[in-house]
Amino acid sequence: MGSLVYQIKIFTIGKTKEQWLEEALEEYTQRLKSVLRIEWHLVKDDAQLLRLLEKEKSFIGLDPQGVLLESVAFSKELFRRLAEGGSRLSFVIGGSDGIPPSIKARARKLLSLSTLTFTHQLTRLVLLEQIYRAFEIEKGSAYHK
Amino acid sequence: MGSLVYQIKIFTIGKTKEQWLEEALEEYTQRLKSVLRIEWHLVKDDAQLLRLLEKEKSFIGLDPQGVLLESVAFSKELFRRLAEGGSRLSFVIGGSDGIPPSIKARARKLLSLSTLTFTHQLTRLVLLEQIYRAFEIEKGSAYHK
Repeated sequence: MGSLVYQIKIFTIGKTKEQWLEEALEEYTQRLKSVLRIEWHLVKDDAQLLRLLEKEKSFIGLDPQGVLLESVAFSKELFRRLAEGGSRLSFVIGGSDGIPPSIKARARKLLSLSTLTFTHQLTRLVLLEQIYRAFEIEKGSAYHK
Repeated sequence: MGSLVYQIKIFTIGKTKEQWLEEALEEYTQRLKSVLRIEWHLVKDDAQLLRLLEKEKSFIGLDPQGVLLESVAFSKELFRRLAEGGSRLSFVIGGSDGIPPSIKARARKLLSLSTLTFTHQLTRLVLLEQIYRAFEIEKGSAYHK
């Protein structure tokens, strides 16, 4: 991947409050910083989410109705979408009711992280760890074996 | 559930090192303490895991080959197994290669938390949050809607 820097934006409703979550997210952000810039957009409601996403050409929605992938397939999907988007990609994390229909209709792809329901906080961490894992898979490291 | 106290043991290979993980696990442990006692058994390898599990009559294995459940079904499964076990239940978290075959053969049930691969650390947190969610579902709270 050399000196190419990718950029991923993650849009989600809610606030990060927990100290442990900040620390966990920071750990993966640091590990990725030479190849990937992560931008978090924490919004307060669906209306704000809708306004912000108007500027986003292409994004992946995380939704209970989305496709369940294994980590290697997730990695392939991630890098295919990054290539399409000129090294840029956005994710939208739905609330407990999933992503609003108007946003869902515009998503390039819908993915699901699990059949189980997670908190917003845990979803953020699972997504970021999976993005980190995707980069490790792409470079063939031992992180994912 | 009244004053009944359940007990869940979780067996897993590896160490908790990260401060953020300790804090996150502690949060759910505290929230559950009036109804559930969580006992973590962190072992160093499959051999030690095998020895410890000889004393466990019935346990659920977390393994990539396991069944994917939604959170409500996970809650039902959890309380059915707790009832069977006299308010006691054990979980075994497999390593990246899953649970050793000899242990898998003895598992009462195999479950999978996701088609994605998680780190040991994240698996512990996802499992504990899901156990907490199972108790909230059982008592009909607004945590899981």
